[in-house]
Amino acid sequence: MVANAPSLDTRFRLDCSTATALANEYGTPLYVIDETHFRESIRRYLNAFKGAYRHAEITYASKANSTIALIRIAYEEGCAIDVASEGELRAALKAGVPAAKCHLHGNNKLRSELEFAIESGIGHIVVDHFGEIETLAELLDDQTQPSLVLRLAPGVDPVTHAKISTGQADTKFGFNITDGSASKAVDRMLALGLNLVGFHCHVGSQLLDPEAQQSGGSLIAKFAKDTLDRTGFRASYLNVGGGLGVRYTGADEPMPVVEYCRMVVQAMREELPGWPDDLILAQEPGRSLVAESGVTLYRVGVVKTVPAPGRGTRTYVCVDGGLSDNPRPVMYGSKYTVLPVEPSDDLATVTVSGRHCETDKLFEDVSLPTSLGTGDLIQVLCTGAYNSGMSSNYNRFLRPAMAILHPDGTHGLIQRRETWDDLFARETF
Amino acid sequence: MVANAPSLDTRFRLDCSTATALANEYGTPLYVIDETHFRESIRRYLNAFKGAYRHAEITYASKANSTIALIRIAYEEGCAIDVASEGELRAALKAGVPAAKCHLHGNNKLRSELEFAIESGIGHIVVDHFGEIETLAELLDDQTQPSLVLRLAPGVDPVTHAKISTGQADTKFGFNITDGSASKAVDRMLALGLNLVGFHCHVGSQLLDPEAQQSGGSLIAKFAKDTLDRTGFRASYLNVGGGLGVRYTGADEPMPVVEYCRMVVQAMREELPGWPDDLILAQEPGRSLVAESGVTLYRVGVVKTVPAPGRGTRTYVCVDGGLSDNPRPVMYGSKYTVLPVEPSDDLATVTVSGRHCETDKLFEDVSLPTSLGTGDLIQVLCTGAYNSGMSSNYNRFLRPAMAILHPDGTHGLIQRRETWDDLFARETF
Repeated sequence: MVANAPSLDTRFRLDCSTATALANEYGTPLYVIDETHFRESIRRYLNAFKGAYRHAEITYASKANSTIALIRIAYEEGCAIDVASEGELRAALKAGVPAAKCHLHGNNKLRSELEFAIESGIGHIVVDHFGEIETLAELLDDQTQPSLVLRLAPGVDPVTHAKISTGQADTKFGFNITDGSASKAVDRMLALGLNLVGFHCHVGSQLLDPEAQQSGGSLIAKFAKDTLDRTGFRASYLNVGGGLGVRYTGADEPMPVVEYCRMVVQAMREELPGWPDDLILAQEPGRSLVAESGVTLYRVGVVKTVPAPGRGTRTYVCVDGGLSDNPRPVMYGSKYTVLPVEPSDDLATVTVSGRHCETDKLFEDVSLPTSLGTGDLIQVLCTGAYNSGMSSNYNRFLRPAMAILHPDGTHGLIQRRETWDDLFARETF
Repeated sequence: MVANAPSLDTRFRLDCSTATALANEYGTPLYVIDETHFRESIRRYLNAFKGAYRHAEITYASKANSTIALIRIAYEEGCAIDVASEGELRAALKAGVPAAKCHLHGNNKLRSELEFAIESGIGHIVVDHFGEIETLAELLDDQTQPSLVLRLAPGVDPVTHAKISTGQADTKFGFNITDGSASKAVDRMLALGLNLVGFHCHVGSQLLDPEAQQSGGSLIAKFAKDTLDRTGFRASYLNVGGGLGVRYTGADEPMPVVEYCRMVVQAMREELPGWPDDLILAQEPGRSLVAESGVTLYRVGVVKTVPAPGRGTRTYVCVDGGLSDNPRPVMYGSKYTVLPVEPSDDLATVTVSGRHCETDKLFEDVSLPTSLGTGDLIQVLCTGAYNSGMSSNYNRFLRPAMAILHPDGTHGLIQRRETWDDLFARETF
């Protein structure tokens, strides 16, 4: 392999005839997921992780895209399902996932949420604070205890966006290792006879520099080792969370998943020499499994060139969606790759803007055909994660449908477009 | 009046017994609107504007809060209704507002949207680009033309957040004055015999420095005067948009609305000496009418103090909502005033965080009682605008209900909480 050679861009994209067929049948804006791409992403990750370690498990972080049909695919491919709320758990159950294969997260789980999860027969609960230990002791009987996993705050500060860095010391999540909270939590759980099975940490999302994940792996393994030495409790489950970055634009260059998994396993092994190999090592990827399998299709409305002080002019390509269907540009300053559905060599730099009554600049300075005009379709790559799930009805826009392309070439909707009736259903007037 | 004396803080807030009653009856998180406060805000604005100019009109920018019951109140108090989509128009119609009292905005109106508006008998359409002029010429017959208002891009750069500055030259909205587009648009509309009545501009939202609005007023008036001189067309309607800031925190000090209206009118009068006084001057406030009339009630879950490198420790107060019910802190870095429902003199600096599987830091470094614990209620002021409308189902959270306090002391829901059935209604699986 040539050093620093960019990896092949395998993000899913639509060809012109499929894009046109989908847009005509289901309307725009439209989220589109390629089933084959999604299944292959999961298999690639799972194979890479199992290649690096025999008892490797993957839990799909359903917050990335909790559409029921996609949770079912993740489960069919061998993932457990990470749910961060009662709603996500309900989605997983509707997908046919046994509760025993679900892992419940949350920094502030409601009591009703814990009760629902336990009644459903949840497999794992990731325990986040001291109060929750006491609540669990109250709610759980001796017979049917789920596996309890202690969430650690390792104090690693990953190189990623501050808003999605959740593993540093100053975090609402988990038990701090260095101030002794994590050890105290272990002691309390053991004293209460709770079914502690191991530890969890998550150093952040969209990690393009693997160093943080490596440090996270080392820290959790070291904590497991120290805990064994200190208390005799031997962890049988260690989860290092998620976080391998995806390619929103060509500037993002995540490391290959094979190397990533090898590196994480290596970091943990170094801290656990001689540890029995029935220890389960788990990861919780979400975005890295589904983001690149999805595109968003928009139809272009007005194209307008205006004076732009300091840069001459700017051409706005206004589409029929906006921040309501993709809030990530305004929330995180996220960049995306925008492509025409009909390739062209004659390109211009434009700004794609939504149609909200707001600046709603979606994708600044992207290359699109000079011939692009009203009625044409464009596609935004890598929108399979955190788009549909974070969408809103701002400006009373109807939320888009989500289509799926099946391996046999057929397609269908896994989420229909909202209707006016949906939009007004909750109001009394 | 003492120079620089802070104005009285008249933002709506709940007393302890009402907060407790509402939370117990409707659950939390809960948006609460005070009807009296909202009505009085509108009256104050309308009186201020009419006091400064006889033919003054106010159009409520419903995007700020398009809950049907609130649109109805705005209309009852004498506002026309600004709608920025077919959905907002439908909300206004459901509120009982005649279409003739609605003004349709949009940088990229769908053809179907224009058709629906025209069929409904829309009163005003704010025309945004050349293509729309041609579409309107096609769709409108001679008999029943709505009033058409040309949106100008005045090139003013207001002192406000870049994401909500929509009046500068480099904008997707309207016709640029300086490059001649606006004049060309007037000529084209007159040549087509369209019912042009006047002009519109909007220099930005949440303006705390009035200079931008003043310049906007001058520019639109000057353009009206120049157009009269050049073409003989005399505008009968000038709309300077919205934008007077509100008090999210004590650091925001908007100018009194009486001064603001006087200043805007004065700026326009200077450019239009001797103009007949049947000219209608309009403003389009949204946030400034409704934001301070609303609070969000949350119930506290876990309270957790953790090591925070560089500052010692940080105390997280985790509530039962998060970025799904208020995305403005993560979108715009917005600050808010957070209060306990039970006043206390013994305060600590804490960070209020949501319960999403994300950093979800809502309100950093706010003062709350040291005694605050699990089950207590807190209220976030000034959340009447852009909270409910921008809310999402991220992490499969159910969107909150919205309660209203009536002048007679009774209360009710104007938007019910989502149900699990709502949440999964659009999915086929």
